[in-house]
Amino acid sequence: MWKTYCNERITLIEEALSHWIPAQEGLLKFLFESMRYSLFAGGKRLRPVLLMAAADAVGGEGRRYLRVACALEMIHTYSLIHDDLPAMDNDDYRRGKLTNHKVFGEGMAILAGDGLLTAAFEQMLLQEEVDAACLTQVVREIAAAAGPAGMVGGQAVDLAASGQAQPLNQEELRFMHRAKTGALFRAALRGGGLLAGATQEQLAALTVYAEEFGLAFQITDDILDVTGDEATIGKPVGSDERNEKETYVSLYSLDGARRMAEESVQRALTAIEIFGAEADVLRSLASYLVSREK
Amino acid sequence: MWKTYCNERITLIEEALSHWIPAQEGLLKFLFESMRYSLFAGGKRLRPVLLMAAADAVGGEGRRYLRVACALEMIHTYSLIHDDLPAMDNDDYRRGKLTNHKVFGEGMAILAGDGLLTAAFEQMLLQEEVDAACLTQVVREIAAAAGPAGMVGGQAVDLAASGQAQPLNQEELRFMHRAKTGALFRAALRGGGLLAGATQEQLAALTVYAEEFGLAFQITDDILDVTGDEATIGKPVGSDERNEKETYVSLYSLDGARRMAEESVQRALTAIEIFGAEADVLRSLASYLVSREK
Repeated sequence: MWKTYCNERITLIEEALSHWIPAQEGLLKFLFESMRYSLFAGGKRLRPVLLMAAADAVGGEGRRYLRVACALEMIHTYSLIHDDLPAMDNDDYRRGKLTNHKVFGEGMAILAGDGLLTAAFEQMLLQEEVDAACLTQVVREIAAAAGPAGMVGGQAVDLAASGQAQPLNQEELRFMHRAKTGALFRAALRGGGLLAGATQEQLAALTVYAEEFGLAFQITDDILDVTGDEATIGKPVGSDERNEKETYVSLYSLDGARRMAEESVQRALTAIEIFGAEADVLRSLASYLVSREK
Repeated sequence: MWKTYCNERITLIEEALSHWIPAQEGLLKFLFESMRYSLFAGGKRLRPVLLMAAADAVGGEGRRYLRVACALEMIHTYSLIHDDLPAMDNDDYRRGKLTNHKVFGEGMAILAGDGLLTAAFEQMLLQEEVDAACLTQVVREIAAAAGPAGMVGGQAVDLAASGQAQPLNQEELRFMHRAKTGALFRAALRGGGLLAGATQEQLAALTVYAEEFGLAFQITDDILDVTGDEATIGKPVGSDERNEKETYVSLYSLDGARRMAEESVQRALTAIEIFGAEADVLRSLASYLVSREK
């Protein structure tokens, strides 16, 4: 049932994204082609679905917040385009497809990322049916989560660490992932809650869920990098600099990492016990996280 | 007198920027160093000053909108960092100083730009003393001006054209500049007007002023590229690919370009005749534009 829920939302999200970042002719053709190439390169739309599910969990109607939800996907996509650049992770493939700069060139890939990031803010501020004061709070939280103390900061720590002889220690690794990946999950869940008028207690529950979800997501990503999954398609084993980086698996062993992920999911589920059946999608998504590698 | 006005605002702007993008220790040290390096590399703070002067022109108090004003400078700075990258204009110097990527590396320069752009939106949404509905409109206009149909789009057209045998024609050149430079000036002037509660008539006047100002700015920039000025310091003559690009001077000759710039300034001045002495700073700034190359 939760898969039907997700698939319905994913359809809405993809239709809206295609409408808001449309194919163009004329002078802006290549820029929009480049943005669309990465927007429609097989993303799971996890962040926008989480925003909608959070709004539903507090009794709202998540699909009403389509613009803010889609903006999260645009921000996520921009970050992948820039992360893949030669000056960063230097990846030629993502999800089995050539990365943006391999198709459109580095300059256009940088601009496609810049364009998606900026357009995301425009979209969010076009969100209707929300009180303007509430909307500014949500967008501000998303900006903070994506900015230099959030996602961009996490990537900067990652980049700086990759040039060092000494890998990140446990505390630094956790900081890096919390900033690079966790902050946007947090903004997605809190954003959905805030838009739908969550109480302070509900918002606190969604925040704990988001933080544990983000941690479990990162740990299982590290596990999948070792046990093999779709993310590694197209990457010859051993050719990736990331293999030299510290991960939850290298720090805690495969079994230790699995246990950590399961404990995180358990804490996420406990946090949202205050909600009724409206939060079942959030429950299923959390459980799915740790099951996807089995 | 208008120079005193500008210098006072510039001091406010630079203090605020330094406060909002502070020097950091720890894991985020290099990212913030990189952002601050370009933020404090000698910018003239023209866009934030224009926003404040527009608010003053309609009887408001421009300095109250410091967060939105500074955000324009952050957006402008991010665009310069990314434009200078090897995959774009490949400039080693700007305003006589090494460009960001020459000091911090390409990866960190990309992230510094991303960080400034995202932080700009956070800052704008922290602006106090403004009705939330008005603020969302202003930020939305700024996002549109900076995004794929505005500044990023203009840069994409510029980038695509530089790889073509055929230079841009007159119409395309004008579109490119209007998107790449003009749109943000327009958002600055309109933003100041909107924040200070401009009437429709006042807003229309500021919009015409902004468009003519932006055009005159670009033309005089092209003139200065030929006659020599501070912008060319550190660039050996003839080493810049831009010399091969079509400019207002190459299209209309030096005299023709000068005449166009003066006519634009005249139209800008005519547009703001409806204002009283409160618009004198805007008048002086427009006149200064065409005088700066003499």
